Amino acid sequence: MFESAELGHTIDDDVYKKAVPELREALLDAQYELAQQKNCPVLILIGGVDGAGKGETANLLNEWMDPRLIHTCAFGPATEDEAERPNMWRYWRELPPKGKIGIFFGSWYTAPILENLSGKLGKKLDSRIKDIVSFERMLSDEGVLIIKLWFHLSKKQQKTRIAALEENPKTRWRVTEQDKQHLKHYEEFRTISGHLLRETSTANAPWIVIEGFDPNYRNLTASQYILDAIKKRLDTKSPATRKAAAPALTLAAADGLNILNALDLSKSLSKDDYESQLEEYQGKLNLLTRHPKFKQISVITAFEGVDAAGKGGAIRRITQALDARIYSTIPIAAPSDEEKAQPYLWRFWRQLPRRGRFTIFDRTWYGRVLVERVEGFCSEQDWMRAYAEINDFEEQLLAHDIVLLKFWLHIDENEQLTRFKARENIAFKRYKITEEDWRNRKKWDAYQQAVCDMIDRTSTEQVPWTLVESNDKKYARIKILKTICEALEQKLESIK
Amino acid sequence: MFESAELGHTIDDDVYKKAVPELREALLDAQYELAQQKNCPVLILIGGVDGAGKGETANLLNEWMDPRLIHTCAFGPATEDEAERPNMWRYWRELPPKGKIGIFFGSWYTAPILENLSGKLGKKLDSRIKDIVSFERMLSDEGVLIIKLWFHLSKKQQKTRIAALEENPKTRWRVTEQDKQHLKHYEEFRTISGHLLRETSTANAPWIVIEGFDPNYRNLTASQYILDAIKKRLDTKSPATRKAAAPALTLAAADGLNILNALDLSKSLSKDDYESQLEEYQGKLNLLTRHPKFKQISVITAFEGVDAAGKGGAIRRITQALDARIYSTIPIAAPSDEEKAQPYLWRFWRQLPRRGRFTIFDRTWYGRVLVERVEGFCSEQDWMRAYAEINDFEEQLLAHDIVLLKFWLHIDENEQLTRFKARENIAFKRYKITEEDWRNRKKWDAYQQAVCDMIDRTSTEQVPWTLVESNDKKYARIKILKTICEALEQKLESIK
Repeated sequence: MFESAELGHTIDDDVYKKAVPELREALLDAQYELAQQKNCPVLILIGGVDGAGKGETANLLNEWMDPRLIHTCAFGPATEDEAERPNMWRYWRELPPKGKIGIFFGSWYTAPILENLSGKLGKKLDSRIKDIVSFERMLSDEGVLIIKLWFHLSKKQQKTRIAALEENPKTRWRVTEQDKQHLKHYEEFRTISGHLLRETSTANAPWIVIEGFDPNYRNLTASQYILDAIKKRLDTKSPATRKAAAPALTLAAADGLNILNALDLSKSLSKDDYESQLEEYQGKLNLLTRHPKFKQISVITAFEGVDAAGKGGAIRRITQALDARIYSTIPIAAPSDEEKAQPYLWRFWRQLPRRGRFTIFDRTWYGRVLVERVEGFCSEQDWMRAYAEINDFEEQLLAHDIVLLKFWLHIDENEQLTRFKARENIAFKRYKITEEDWRNRKKWDAYQQAVCDMIDRTSTEQVPWTLVESNDKKYARIKILKTICEALEQKLESIK
Repeated sequence: MFESAELGHTIDDDVYKKAVPELREALLDAQYELAQQKNCPVLILIGGVDGAGKGETANLLNEWMDPRLIHTCAFGPATEDEAERPNMWRYWRELPPKGKIGIFFGSWYTAPILENLSGKLGKKLDSRIKDIVSFERMLSDEGVLIIKLWFHLSKKQQKTRIAALEENPKTRWRVTEQDKQHLKHYEEFRTISGHLLRETSTANAPWIVIEGFDPNYRNLTASQYILDAIKKRLDTKSPATRKAAAPALTLAAADGLNILNALDLSKSLSKDDYESQLEEYQGKLNLLTRHPKFKQISVITAFEGVDAAGKGGAIRRITQALDARIYSTIPIAAPSDEEKAQPYLWRFWRQLPRRGRFTIFDRTWYGRVLVERVEGFCSEQDWMRAYAEINDFEEQLLAHDIVLLKFWLHIDENEQLTRFKARENIAFKRYKITEEDWRNRKKWDAYQQAVCDMIDRTSTEQVPWTLVESNDKKYARIKILKTICEALEQKLESIK
């Protein structure tokens, strides 16, 4: 959930100062049109880690827009008046009416996180999530535009931020004992809030995670999302399609930095190192699948990647190490007639391995949020709901002791061009390159954006995406084999 | 949830035999059109209590329709093959493709109920519900038409059914030890399944509860629902509005019997009895609200009823007993501009009482599923989702130690006519009768249907609807006062 927000985004002051006037004007225009049309209330929820600029953002929005049409509320511990009513009363009474913007600073997300940190909630978190999802769905069905912004800092950034505030006598008062406590529990906070954010990111009210360290980046990004969401809604006249006008998932980062272009694609291995490590890890993998406890688990590896990134070659290095009786490779191309007559996850469910088996998907269920999204094979509403559906699907696999590994094989545009040309020139590789590959290449940016969204929204603590720097095929293959061996070792050890 | 299915519905053999041929033909026609259009899969889930005709219905559907286009599955304990995959695998692999009908006899609802009966699930039920709701929403978003039929028997009916089967040597084998166990746990089963059904009745996949005792009634009702749902879907060509084509909530009962016309409206009280009981219960109510623990709770009474059923008079008999400083009466008419700019529940949230207060709603949030439904002030999708939203709302009230009482005041058509005429003839009552009252009267049947749905779908163990036979005003007023006193006594006693 936080991958894209730990990259160290920054915007130069020059760029920032140039962008602001236009953005402010656009925000004001959108705000006045909203007030005039009165077609929906806008509810902006602001959450995130301490020191990531939550309060600053609320102030900024009031400064950049007309504060008379904004209702900002900060929710702390319940007042006496609030405590005498059901929990949600305080939020209901502050809901913005149609045509206005409400900014909720702290919300129904605060309690579930804090309660869980202190161990009060435990297994009841699911029940909280169910209530939140129903509540937000009702608001959305009633026409409320919900924009949920989460401001994030990496642990290092948060430490730096708190230290800086403490050093300065003018800002020292802002650092509370609670802030320091929270820093101590950073990992728990990240895990629980990541889980909560993923589970409450619905097609109609998705979370937008914004890196909060650099104020320029934070301000531009937050306002751009808000502007985009309001404009999209204003352009939707029919109430029937209004729900589809949810906030965009990810706009291209204001500073152009993303998870993929932050990868160090120069990583490589010498031929000798490659050969010795290949032997080592293939041997290890083979032994692991012969382990007596292997019969109690199953393995699924999911391969996605840029065209010509080397999925096929990497998969062959795995299967070379496996007994042919225990594995199957499932290439995913266009669905068959039978598959088209079913929900899109059906073709994957039917291929789930039984105990002691190893299934390799060459392209996967993520096609829904990659090719289907980019090529428009399904509606925006369809691929936006797919993240939650896929997370649900994978949770069921994990709960059943299936080891699931997800690999994204990445190469840059130049490397792809070189490989495409090579394929065209070598007779026995020519079948691997089609007109479609060239067409996809033209949509490079759209695909990159879809991949970043996918990684942010489906990387979990238990099933993270492994990003594989694949400009050097040898490096890529070893990284993959090593990742599989380590995951298997860990799983087999955990079985009593 | 089961109110309408415990009335003792029956259909005469003559009527049944006459209705069947036409119904079968219509079912076949719908089935063939579905197969030809291939626009969606139809999934029929069959659940319910033992002996209520679940298996018989599955057989019947195969007999009345073309079995080549039906795929019937009964799910028992997991086979070895199934146990080696995640729980839902068995259901995924049996999903019907577009154009076909799948009948699931036992489904993902079986385990949560049985586990809860044996005490294994407890507080985790919410988590189960969350998973079921997401799963069915995904299916529905993917275009599957989900028809969920629940066959119900009252406890007495179930006893009779099992005894009858045991008496006959030819059917004795059908009664298992499990059936007898289940009869023993009837109440728990009813509570847990009622809760589960309410929580998983969504706008797109509502549960239909059918009384299962009389086979004629059961067969006609089940087939009529299925026919209706398939035809409605076939008539919906656009994928965007397809979701709205969910099964109807309640068709008029095949035998004309419903919760309201089953009431004994001849109930009455003599003037003397009325006066002495009025004094008794008003005194009691007054004392209860002066109880020291009353400051720890709040009370909400919700009044709905047929026009001219006597809500106003009944409310006055309550307020006469209360200290003016602790109660407020909230009459609900057309919403104000401010209220219209908010989600429909907002106007009720803002009126929630603080501790030690007593709020009387004269008409309520149920307007959404009564007048707004019947008059078309909101879409079908809107009022269908309202049942779940209202249940969520009321659950929050209960969780906050609010005593909530819901009264439906009922009179018959003749009594209403008499009262309307009387109002027109008495000068000081003339303001109480408007053109609108006469217009509503013409929609008597539509309103009755909406009331029956409302009672079925929002009566819970903790907050049942109290149906008040109101042809005699004296009887009605005493029943209401008595109900309030008893609920308050019980609540105050439960506080430590």
